[in-house]
Amino acid sequence: MFDKVTFIGIGLIGSSMARVMKRDGLAKSIVACARRKETLDACLRLGIADEVTSDYAAAVKGADLVVIATPVGTNEEITKIIAPHLKPGAIITDVGSVKTAVISAIQPHLPKGVHFVPAHPLAGTEHSGPEAGFAELFQGRWCILTPLPDCDAVAVEKVKAFWAKAGSKIETMQAEHHDKVLAITSHLPHLIAFTIVGTADDLAEDLKQEVIQYSASGFRDFTRIAASDPIMWRDIFMNNREAVLEILQRFTEDLTALQRAIRRGDGDSLETLFARTRAIRRGVIDAKQA
Amino acid sequence: MFDKVTFIGIGLIGSSMARVMKRDGLAKSIVACARRKETLDACLRLGIADEVTSDYAAAVKGADLVVIATPVGTNEEITKIIAPHLKPGAIITDVGSVKTAVISAIQPHLPKGVHFVPAHPLAGTEHSGPEAGFAELFQGRWCILTPLPDCDAVAVEKVKAFWAKAGSKIETMQAEHHDKVLAITSHLPHLIAFTIVGTADDLAEDLKQEVIQYSASGFRDFTRIAASDPIMWRDIFMNNREAVLEILQRFTEDLTALQRAIRRGDGDSLETLFARTRAIRRGVIDAKQA
Repeated sequence: MFDKVTFIGIGLIGSSMARVMKRDGLAKSIVACARRKETLDACLRLGIADEVTSDYAAAVKGADLVVIATPVGTNEEITKIIAPHLKPGAIITDVGSVKTAVISAIQPHLPKGVHFVPAHPLAGTEHSGPEAGFAELFQGRWCILTPLPDCDAVAVEKVKAFWAKAGSKIETMQAEHHDKVLAITSHLPHLIAFTIVGTADDLAEDLKQEVIQYSASGFRDFTRIAASDPIMWRDIFMNNREAVLEILQRFTEDLTALQRAIRRGDGDSLETLFARTRAIRRGVIDAKQA
Repeated sequence: MFDKVTFIGIGLIGSSMARVMKRDGLAKSIVACARRKETLDACLRLGIADEVTSDYAAAVKGADLVVIATPVGTNEEITKIIAPHLKPGAIITDVGSVKTAVISAIQPHLPKGVHFVPAHPLAGTEHSGPEAGFAELFQGRWCILTPLPDCDAVAVEKVKAFWAKAGSKIETMQAEHHDKVLAITSHLPHLIAFTIVGTADDLAEDLKQEVIQYSASGFRDFTRIAASDPIMWRDIFMNNREAVLEILQRFTEDLTALQRAIRRGDGDSLETLFARTRAIRRGVIDAKQA
């Protein structure tokens, strides 16, 4: 499928993609590029890269596919560095959880004849780093592509073909729409989980220990979400600000209404809402996402 | 262990307790009491009760253990009805997720010589009703007892012995403290999950369908929590109002601070918090609650 694939950043997602390529023989040669020596050593040890380097410019030379898989806040700087060294006709793709900001960060800096196909695999775990990856991570999960209207059709098809090999279900949509949907399905849930776990972390030490001890009664599920990579999530919130703030505002209004119902002893309002939310769960189960 | 055990209310928790008693031969006879005929029919069909009735007074006659397993809002009325019919020396226990309000609802109405041992098994699923129960539900899970200081020690030991047979780890604490801990570990997480799923339910229909479709990226975990029994949860919030409102206030303050950091582009504050919450997850894993 590809002669030379370069990963810029190779953590949970990048290393899982590299594993798919190795498993299915999709790349003659894989180059892993990262800043930290431990990451590069791990890639060689795990056999998921043929070459490793911390030199971005050298890494992309001759590559027909470059996968940017670093926290989205780094994308503009990285693109500026690699742009002059990209092969004509090369395909650039990414895996970022926000798409409008990523397109603004990458597209303007690319030379003509290089094709950017933005992609977002909706897959992950709370673990980070190349050791945490596995080839089955994308199996049965969605991958959303948000190519610009004038993007090269052949390049888009090649990126789609990779994600199909990885076992993903593929959807295409506009970047703005992606960012709005993800703000609700992913960014707000993570923000809330980070908040509630932070609230618990601020408790007095003995109470905190009890909260951990009895966490299986609901809190535990939030701790898993709130264990996700800090830098990656910082960059997501910094780069999908408008959509996150808008849905957060709605959530806060709804929470305030519930708070008021509890304070006033208005059980009917609570019951009505709680019965309504049950129906959504049935929708999730019917959509085979449970 | 018991001659006659009566369950007042026999849904997920009550029926799971009855299954433990049947499995281990802990009761010569089990009586199930519920308002709805379908519930009683299910108990007979499932073989988890020897007798069924919708008559509370008749149900408790001669019982040496009465388990109140209805939504906590019903406890006072039920206790008033059954109190005159309780056998001297009978043990009353419950399974409510709040304990101060339950003690106030039950204890004052009991005749002398009847022993109330409040209990809260920290176990459950998002499913309801007697069909949803299973004997292994309590295996390895905590059960918190909150007996009053003057409670009969033998009665407390008998209730403890039952929960030990069910496979639970048993802890004893004051009711007020229980309510504070559970407000954080269980009630607030549920309140937030109900809220966010309700916020999504208010979206335009096409966007809502997309949120369901892509729910695996975080939202899904909240829908499971928000599918729990509406009446049970209404009663929990109505009966642990102070503790829930206090922790909710802290949560809201923390969320407002995060919102402000996002609006101002203050990535450092986000990163600091997100790194901190990771540590709590390690605590949960170390406590074998993950």
